[in-house]
Amino acid sequence: MSDPRPGLSTAFFTDHYELTMLNAALRDGTADRPCVFEAFARRLPEGRRYGVVGGTGRLIEELERFRFSDDELRFLRDNQVVDADTIAWLERYTFSGDILGYREGELYFPESPILTVRASFAEGVILETLILSILNHDSAIASAAARMISAAQGRPCIEMGSRRTHEEAAVASARAAYLAGFTSTSNLEAGRRHGVPTAGTAAHAFTLLHDSELDAFRSQVDAFGPGTSLLVDTYDVMDGIRNAVAAAGPELGAIRLDSGDLGELAKEARELLDSLGATKTRIIVTSDLDEYAIASLLAAPVDGYGVGTSLVTGSGAPTAGMVYKIVERDGVPVAKKSSGKGSVGGQKTAVRRHSTTGKMTEEVAVIGGEPTPEERDLVLQVPYVQDGEFLPRASLNETRDYHAQQMKTLPREALKLLRGCPILDVDVQYAKGQPA
Amino acid sequence: MSDPRPGLSTAFFTDHYELTMLNAALRDGTADRPCVFEAFARRLPEGRRYGVVGGTGRLIEELERFRFSDDELRFLRDNQVVDADTIAWLERYTFSGDILGYREGELYFPESPILTVRASFAEGVILETLILSILNHDSAIASAAARMISAAQGRPCIEMGSRRTHEEAAVASARAAYLAGFTSTSNLEAGRRHGVPTAGTAAHAFTLLHDSELDAFRSQVDAFGPGTSLLVDTYDVMDGIRNAVAAAGPELGAIRLDSGDLGELAKEARELLDSLGATKTRIIVTSDLDEYAIASLLAAPVDGYGVGTSLVTGSGAPTAGMVYKIVERDGVPVAKKSSGKGSVGGQKTAVRRHSTTGKMTEEVAVIGGEPTPEERDLVLQVPYVQDGEFLPRASLNETRDYHAQQMKTLPREALKLLRGCPILDVDVQYAKGQPA
Repeated sequence: MSDPRPGLSTAFFTDHYELTMLNAALRDGTADRPCVFEAFARRLPEGRRYGVVGGTGRLIEELERFRFSDDELRFLRDNQVVDADTIAWLERYTFSGDILGYREGELYFPESPILTVRASFAEGVILETLILSILNHDSAIASAAARMISAAQGRPCIEMGSRRTHEEAAVASARAAYLAGFTSTSNLEAGRRHGVPTAGTAAHAFTLLHDSELDAFRSQVDAFGPGTSLLVDTYDVMDGIRNAVAAAGPELGAIRLDSGDLGELAKEARELLDSLGATKTRIIVTSDLDEYAIASLLAAPVDGYGVGTSLVTGSGAPTAGMVYKIVERDGVPVAKKSSGKGSVGGQKTAVRRHSTTGKMTEEVAVIGGEPTPEERDLVLQVPYVQDGEFLPRASLNETRDYHAQQMKTLPREALKLLRGCPILDVDVQYAKGQPA
Repeated sequence: MSDPRPGLSTAFFTDHYELTMLNAALRDGTADRPCVFEAFARRLPEGRRYGVVGGTGRLIEELERFRFSDDELRFLRDNQVVDADTIAWLERYTFSGDILGYREGELYFPESPILTVRASFAEGVILETLILSILNHDSAIASAAARMISAAQGRPCIEMGSRRTHEEAAVASARAAYLAGFTSTSNLEAGRRHGVPTAGTAAHAFTLLHDSELDAFRSQVDAFGPGTSLLVDTYDVMDGIRNAVAAAGPELGAIRLDSGDLGELAKEARELLDSLGATKTRIIVTSDLDEYAIASLLAAPVDGYGVGTSLVTGSGAPTAGMVYKIVERDGVPVAKKSSGKGSVGGQKTAVRRHSTTGKMTEEVAVIGGEPTPEERDLVLQVPYVQDGEFLPRASLNETRDYHAQQMKTLPREALKLLRGCPILDVDVQYAKGQPA
């Protein structure tokens, strides 16, 4: 679980303009004004009923490493990005404010205040890009993964999309998929860095390396025992299955189908496996699966799904569309009025209510004021950083369990794959005594 | 330009199954069989006329750091991914084969053999995931970027999508956009690591921090001079422009419009700026632009485009769909027959021919045999690694220039944004004297 980049500064995962804003604010004396920033999504991807917060744990860890070291400062100086006073400020910089937000794995809706940063303008503004990069990417993957898990109705899903996305995004995707319920990943770095269980057996190349398919299968069984999974579609699927059982015997763990009409093939494969006595051999299918393909295979005798491209590209929505906006300055709500992109000023406390059967019924984001005592347990935000101190965080497995519980609070209609509106409309309200 | 991760091993950006295949092949004695692997795309994203090879330079650098150190070996041992003999092999591993391929920035088509690895099965098979992750991601971004540059018809494009993708993918995206012709990026790490020019001035938060828009603009001009770019749409755009000229005078460098009907606003803004004497002030537009929006603004008085989300998500095609397949073993062409996913066996030498006016007319991938002397200059593949030795590489700026030249070889119809078929159909042929 060790991070192979422990000393690496994350401070340069930042847009140039954050430092120029800092520079100008330091010069004019506004840099220390206390501010509140919020990260939220104005809308969900087209047709989605809910979103899943992903990446918060990874983000908080990267924020702990957000420091400007000699190498970063040298670049800023050599390239005249900012002036000498700003460089001196960055050299001394550590975050001293508060960060609170939704738990990782939580469900969210348009306007849900997913992350709140309370800090001076200077300390808050420079975190924008890192916060958004991580939340936008990981939430997009977690949201797609949750729909796949839900479509699979209990059958295991294996993440295998590393080759279809940036090599580091692959690691984050494996982590996000796991928290949303995937059982394992093909990605070794996700195993090492995040403790996600890893899995994998063989590709077509292994069969093609050998003089015959049977040779290849015998070799694999020799190395990993009959419980391994054999990829049977390099030549003819049914011949492949016969070779697989010939090599491993009826104790063969699984076969994998990676092409063709998977539903029909799975039925034929099941019949053939049963006729050969391999009644417990599982059938794993892969090949451009998404949540719709997973759902369409529910009637087929499939025991597990391997999902690649569509998972790591967010199944049509590769980014979650979150933004990071200043909502208060000197205790006063502020908001831009830009056409179609306006925001609502004021720090928001989010409360979610449920029916007696445990299904979510409403989410309210209250501006100003403290939650009442009976509301306090319903508040969705938890503290991550207090006065610059990074608090203990949930483990990835705790996050995964929390997410699984939250999925049960969704009304049934939210779990259908049909396109629709977000299942909750966040109601932004002003607390009593606050100006509207 | 220093890489902040110089010592970091890239060996774990790898799928579990590559190591289990290695394990089984080491046990059965096939691991040393000489093989050829090729990376190629079976098709282009729907409607695209050409693809742009991105990431090769980054890939070769990461392959140089593909070593199994104690930390990786410990994980493999502790998690029983492979046996002790395999761990001993990995400990000694360095790549000793050949890698050749298309130049970075080159154009490609379905079946173009973009990267070729000649090595033992063992040495070649474990590189699959890293090769595909980098080529699939960076080529997707470079391909989208090239269409945007082409749509912009000479107006500068600025990359500003970091916040919409994974924090490391953001750095690679900025690099890929630059090689395809973008002038600069918002991403500081891309500036440091790859030497991409960085740019940026201010967000709406900077205006909202101040007591008035005019205060904010005066502060920015005070810090960066009148040549800066002022974001004028926080409240009312035309008032914003008046404030901008009041703060910077007619020497104001640029205004930025980030919302609303950009075409109409740009016209009104141009008239107002001119009437205020700011005739040389440029108008930069941003806000969910893609190649189509860029093209639709050609008639408007726009001087530059900032592109974010659609660039870093590949404008609808976030991954290039490349695969990495074994095509020869022991000098014999091999290919799988899987339904709809078959491949053509045999190492391919790619030759591209042009008309007398310099437009590409055909691409041939010849299996077996050497190119004739007159063909040798037309071969698209260049060596990257020879007998394990990593050869000197083109700089990013050389790659960018090479790409710009190649774009001129596309027939005019390929530069239209209309959906169509790939402009070249790669003709896979057998050399004379080779069995078909």
